[in-house]
Amino acid sequence: MHNHALLAACLLTALSLPAGAQNQTLAQRLGHPADAKLLIIHADDLAVAHAQDMASFAALDRGAASSASIMVPCPWLTEVAEYAKAHPQADLGLHLTLTSEWKNYRWGPISPRDQVLSLLDPHGYLFSDTGEAVRHIKPEEAEREIRAQVETALKMGIRPTHLDSHMAVLFARPALVAVLARVAHEYHLPFLMLKIPGVPPDMYAALKPTDVVLDRVFMASPPIKPEDWLRYYTHILETLPPGVSELIVHLAYDDAEMQAVTIDHPDYGSAWRQRDFNVVTSPEFRKALEENHIRLVSWRDLGKLLPKP
Amino acid sequence: MHNHALLAACLLTALSLPAGAQNQTLAQRLGHPADAKLLIIHADDLAVAHAQDMASFAALDRGAASSASIMVPCPWLTEVAEYAKAHPQADLGLHLTLTSEWKNYRWGPISPRDQVLSLLDPHGYLFSDTGEAVRHIKPEEAEREIRAQVETALKMGIRPTHLDSHMAVLFARPALVAVLARVAHEYHLPFLMLKIPGVPPDMYAALKPTDVVLDRVFMASPPIKPEDWLRYYTHILETLPPGVSELIVHLAYDDAEMQAVTIDHPDYGSAWRQRDFNVVTSPEFRKALEENHIRLVSWRDLGKLLPKP
Repeated sequence: MHNHALLAACLLTALSLPAGAQNQTLAQRLGHPADAKLLIIHADDLAVAHAQDMASFAALDRGAASSASIMVPCPWLTEVAEYAKAHPQADLGLHLTLTSEWKNYRWGPISPRDQVLSLLDPHGYLFSDTGEAVRHIKPEEAEREIRAQVETALKMGIRPTHLDSHMAVLFARPALVAVLARVAHEYHLPFLMLKIPGVPPDMYAALKPTDVVLDRVFMASPPIKPEDWLRYYTHILETLPPGVSELIVHLAYDDAEMQAVTIDHPDYGSAWRQRDFNVVTSPEFRKALEENHIRLVSWRDLGKLLPKP
Repeated sequence: MHNHALLAACLLTALSLPAGAQNQTLAQRLGHPADAKLLIIHADDLAVAHAQDMASFAALDRGAASSASIMVPCPWLTEVAEYAKAHPQADLGLHLTLTSEWKNYRWGPISPRDQVLSLLDPHGYLFSDTGEAVRHIKPEEAEREIRAQVETALKMGIRPTHLDSHMAVLFARPALVAVLARVAHEYHLPFLMLKIPGVPPDMYAALKPTDVVLDRVFMASPPIKPEDWLRYYTHILETLPPGVSELIVHLAYDDAEMQAVTIDHPDYGSAWRQRDFNVVTSPEFRKALEENHIRLVSWRDLGKLLPKP
């Protein structure tokens, strides 16, 4: 392309995008019809355990998951970094981690512990549960830690496509949402965000008009019985409204490691994660995606909608 | 016992021990004949992985290992702490850890990273190999870190019986031996130490006359072929000289987790550790111990020889 043709193309893009973006739905901004049903199938918790990595990589490789996110402070980070370098098109974000929830298998922060004391339990690990974490965490220390997580991932050769928050800690207080938004803006990354009706608007005060806001998020939760697993997920697909939705899954192989990691915690435990893997890789789930005209999208697609740095 | 009888017993001990200790062998100080063959069968690397913990606990439970030591910075520490609390008589020391040697599974220090920068590789993990660690580590930062490891273990409810050094980092330079000895003295713990002929005496300058020095240590090393595993170990037992020896083994189950932890590293890898487990729990090994009149001892026994705090 000649230089002046390139210039014209850039101008055209610059002129058309912002005006259109105000009125278009997120689906339309992604180049789809307004009534398109777009879905991110998102595998959480990469790097937490080898069994989680192997199941999640298998699902990504066969297109059963369209995106995933990585827990930087966890011990298997290097395994995920190797995968990321070997699969540069894989849609991998950072599952910013401010909790360490398992009983016998724990991790601490990336930052020097004495600089993030408000994140730590008495043994120097991250807190076990979201409530405790949200009550104790000082936003400036959360920001220090998540910046360290982003920088560590970059140093390891990971080029994250998006940010989200392990156990939703960063979605729980306006000051923590602001930390997430600030770091995401600085690194020009989209981040998981919903606007939930009834939540006071100060929760979203740090968002910019150009931020990507998903239409809805689905995630299996404890009351579902194992025998209803497939039906829970196919029901989501059968009733999925138009727009951009995310389905969060936790994929792992139910083996000795994963059973030990999740010991005494059947919710989101080892068998749970195997069930999630079995469903998303099943012919029935694939068929339900096709029959309901659901197209998979990724956070990389959403990232392209952000203003250029 | 009446108070004055107690006092007399104490005096007797105080009078008899130091004089005797000068002339007695370590075996005699432990209450055995001078020609007794005493052996610590020591399982290294507890807390590194679930498969390591399970195999090591199984060996300790059935008396196939008489002692073990724990890697405090590793993610499965809580699993080991639970075992330690449930088995207060188990002989568990601390395998002071200044390296993180596996390819895809890493850990950092316990101390705030910015206080132990000389211990860290470019990604903030402990160095992969002993040589690199020994070249870079500042003794005062090694001391800060191993103190933090001891304090963390105590806080987790572990009462260590002894100290030793993962990948022998603390045995490699006089200043590092001095760090190990200083911390061990402060916590009144025996620590793994040999006096190797030909090593300049400044290596041992920090040792006290009351420190326990083992007669010899055995550990399998790479040239041994898998089919020679049992023979390697039974040969050690058949030719064991009198005195107090330690046989270091690495016990783990050869499963998906352990194979991934030790990927690309057959030496001391997953199959290696399963072989070690198979040998020490075998009837042939048990028989060789009996036929060669070898008695198992523990670091707790050795700790009783130290001067009382």
